[in-house]
Amino acid sequence: MKTEYLDRIRCERLRNRVTGAAEAASWIKDGMTVGMSGFTRAGDVKLVPAALAERARREPLKITLLTGASLGNDTDKLLTEAGALARRMPFQVDPVLRAAINRGEVMYIDQHLSETVEQLRSRHIKPVDVAVVEAVAITESGAIVPTTSVGNSASFAILADKVIVEINLAHTTGLEGLHDIWIPKKRPLREPIPVMSVEQRAGTPAIEIPPEKIVAIVITDQPDSTSSVLPPDEETAAIAGHLVRFFEDEILKGRLTSSLLPLQAGIGSIANAVLAGFVHSPFHHLTMYSEVLQDSTFDLFDAGKLEFASGSSITLSPERSAQVFRDFDRYRDRLVLRPQEVSNHPEVIRRLGIIAINTALEADIYGNINSTHVGGTHMMNGIGGSGDFARNAYLSVFATKATAKGGKVSSIVPMVSHVDHTEHDVDIVVTELGLADLRGLAPRERAEVIIDRCTAEPYKTMLREYVAEAQQRGGQTPHVLEKAFAWHQRYRETGSMLAGD
Amino acid sequence: MKTEYLDRIRCERLRNRVTGAAEAASWIKDGMTVGMSGFTRAGDVKLVPAALAERARREPLKITLLTGASLGNDTDKLLTEAGALARRMPFQVDPVLRAAINRGEVMYIDQHLSETVEQLRSRHIKPVDVAVVEAVAITESGAIVPTTSVGNSASFAILADKVIVEINLAHTTGLEGLHDIWIPKKRPLREPIPVMSVEQRAGTPAIEIPPEKIVAIVITDQPDSTSSVLPPDEETAAIAGHLVRFFEDEILKGRLTSSLLPLQAGIGSIANAVLAGFVHSPFHHLTMYSEVLQDSTFDLFDAGKLEFASGSSITLSPERSAQVFRDFDRYRDRLVLRPQEVSNHPEVIRRLGIIAINTALEADIYGNINSTHVGGTHMMNGIGGSGDFARNAYLSVFATKATAKGGKVSSIVPMVSHVDHTEHDVDIVVTELGLADLRGLAPRERAEVIIDRCTAEPYKTMLREYVAEAQQRGGQTPHVLEKAFAWHQRYRETGSMLAGD
Repeated sequence: MKTEYLDRIRCERLRNRVTGAAEAASWIKDGMTVGMSGFTRAGDVKLVPAALAERARREPLKITLLTGASLGNDTDKLLTEAGALARRMPFQVDPVLRAAINRGEVMYIDQHLSETVEQLRSRHIKPVDVAVVEAVAITESGAIVPTTSVGNSASFAILADKVIVEINLAHTTGLEGLHDIWIPKKRPLREPIPVMSVEQRAGTPAIEIPPEKIVAIVITDQPDSTSSVLPPDEETAAIAGHLVRFFEDEILKGRLTSSLLPLQAGIGSIANAVLAGFVHSPFHHLTMYSEVLQDSTFDLFDAGKLEFASGSSITLSPERSAQVFRDFDRYRDRLVLRPQEVSNHPEVIRRLGIIAINTALEADIYGNINSTHVGGTHMMNGIGGSGDFARNAYLSVFATKATAKGGKVSSIVPMVSHVDHTEHDVDIVVTELGLADLRGLAPRERAEVIIDRCTAEPYKTMLREYVAEAQQRGGQTPHVLEKAFAWHQRYRETGSMLAGD
Repeated sequence: MKTEYLDRIRCERLRNRVTGAAEAASWIKDGMTVGMSGFTRAGDVKLVPAALAERARREPLKITLLTGASLGNDTDKLLTEAGALARRMPFQVDPVLRAAINRGEVMYIDQHLSETVEQLRSRHIKPVDVAVVEAVAITESGAIVPTTSVGNSASFAILADKVIVEINLAHTTGLEGLHDIWIPKKRPLREPIPVMSVEQRAGTPAIEIPPEKIVAIVITDQPDSTSSVLPPDEETAAIAGHLVRFFEDEILKGRLTSSLLPLQAGIGSIANAVLAGFVHSPFHHLTMYSEVLQDSTFDLFDAGKLEFASGSSITLSPERSAQVFRDFDRYRDRLVLRPQEVSNHPEVIRRLGIIAINTALEADIYGNINSTHVGGTHMMNGIGGSGDFARNAYLSVFATKATAKGGKVSSIVPMVSHVDHTEHDVDIVVTELGLADLRGLAPRERAEVIIDRCTAEPYKTMLREYVAEAQQRGGQTPHVLEKAFAWHQRYRETGSMLAGD
């Protein structure tokens, strides 16, 4: 490792910036805002945050931490345990950080993933003092070649005064050329995003910044954390089956062709499993315009189903990760990684006409979706990119298993305890029991279809009783407000949404 | 009137299509889907819907009615009373229709105003059988020149097999040239919307369709209904004052210039009054990129504050209407009317960086907004374009008076009874009492600022008690679910949100 990194720092005058993690981290002071690379555990910086956590145990050090999305390598855990996080945005998935957020100890600003850098650019939030970005290499001109994610790294590096680069030797140099860095101009000079198809490149292959902003370079060979998605099971296979049949019917009706439209799949086991289910579908020449490329993307490539995939990160299971990066030449020409501002941008999503498949924590009878808050109060992960996609999609699908906790929780409730996506942004709700096609339906009709198709007994009967009582009171969206959260209250008090449990 | 219309039908071979309203309406059959012009009471068709209502009283006739937005001339009332409406989308404001919707008699599909024609184009909703469009004139080539709104008229006329035109002699021919009709291509051929500034024109001045699709032409001279907005009062003036001071501060901080960014103001008295308040501001060279251009737009023109206004309709009070259309040459070069798909398009709104000012029915302590549902159940009007703008704006402002019903209702509640806009899409909440700047704040911090700045006593004290109890239970967004709607329940039962009232 000692000299190998020299090939990775092709801008010779930057080679003397190589230093240890603690020294690099010393650029970060108490009270600063720090922008770090990392999106769905991919391409996050490893050593500098660990050194920061170490220092925070010895001296006062609290930062505002911005990332692309979630980090791996227990970074959020280490920083939380060291008390180093004052504020955190726009996404996280760490259990230790989550608990601190829910105790009100870390201020967590849950954001649409396309919007964080807009807010920075507009100075609606405090500027990034230091950017810390993982790189495969630094080019001759000092440009930063990202690794397995782009996320917000480019804008962090462009907007920050100081940039720390972690060169990670564990990533194949084959990643160079994978990225397409395009950043909008400031208003009023802003132009259309020149992406008219999933594969179109608009920008540069590396993050171009004045090299003198790079104040430190750290060398590591610590790999990305792998994904923790669960393999498909009977229920996710059933969900995939319902969707495949739905799309087959759309093709029969002439609304879609057998290559569908570009697919987006949310982070996590269910969306990944649903997409993996398309391996055994009659669809072909598929494309993806998504944020995270998971195992299912490569399953579809290997099955000859997928033509091209655009994303902002690649996050794979341990087995897939080993295989994909070993055989990377097989895939590279059919992949592009973009800033999350572009992968998730309303403009491009609406132009291309994305089929968006995201996961619901709970849905209500009218098709409003809770993606984030357990019991309406406690943060699970965050809204992530689901809002960027669901709002602007050609078709917005939300998938969930019909029940959780061994049947003690219904994922379909009278009223969601927290709204992330309103009924206007939800076309399809699908569970293992069936699919509710809500297009063109009024709320009372939506309730009928969702209850009928997606709900498990005895909740189905309970929901019908609720609707009957609610309709007595009238309204566009009938509810019995004093009973709307009764199921959630019962679960909180008894551990089950079922009376008498 | 008898011959005057001949000048308005410049395509000679269409002159023999002139007929009476009842005969024209006979193209519309029971069960059809009809797309009519009309947006915020402007540019709606007058005679054909009245003839339809007349016929529906005599024979079975139920239609699905699509419009741009709300209609004038009691059209929705007449059609509802005649039992002619099976389904209605995407917006309405009529009390009689509203009551029928809330009784569940008319299925109302409340939509983001930019999305209706996307759903038609994708055939997610049933196709429009007949389009009925108000026109100033028909050009030599048979193109339709809209009147005081564009709304969805262009796409209705393009997508329908049959088109009925109402030539309205009450509208000045000076309106010709005002419109900019640009319609996106079908995917995957769709290109960026070529609008890079509020005044940029992208399309044609009239709706170009094959003239043979025009099956009937009706002549009328019935004027548009005028707006019913209330004049500014002490409270709306105070809201405007808070916003002016906020923007002055933004200029001082270098985040905005004195021309701000393009303004959007929602439909109705409060947003209109807020914008009118900018007449007495230090801002100048303002621009608007909005949906409805109300009295305030022309107040700002007359005050020399406004450079240019882009919208989808012009809806004015009786006095303003008379003056503006009499002096239309004074304004015309500084106005453009676009299809609502373009005026409200996420792509353009985000590119231009709109300052969006919309009205809340109620807001909660975390900044979620209810724009539509009284008591969480009963439809008032509809979400309209507020979601298109709030989501994609540079800055999203929601304004409301702090209380309603003589103080018996607080507009700031523990939890909104219906969510139209989530906290992610709300940067500023402002009432006559003050302004809450929520940018970059976590939910617990948002609650503090909203309660402190925007809330009237005794609700302020009641909200603080609620928050204290909720925080005992923890969470990112603390709530006491069984009490979250207690105020709404009390209002329903006693007519007041105050205990003991």
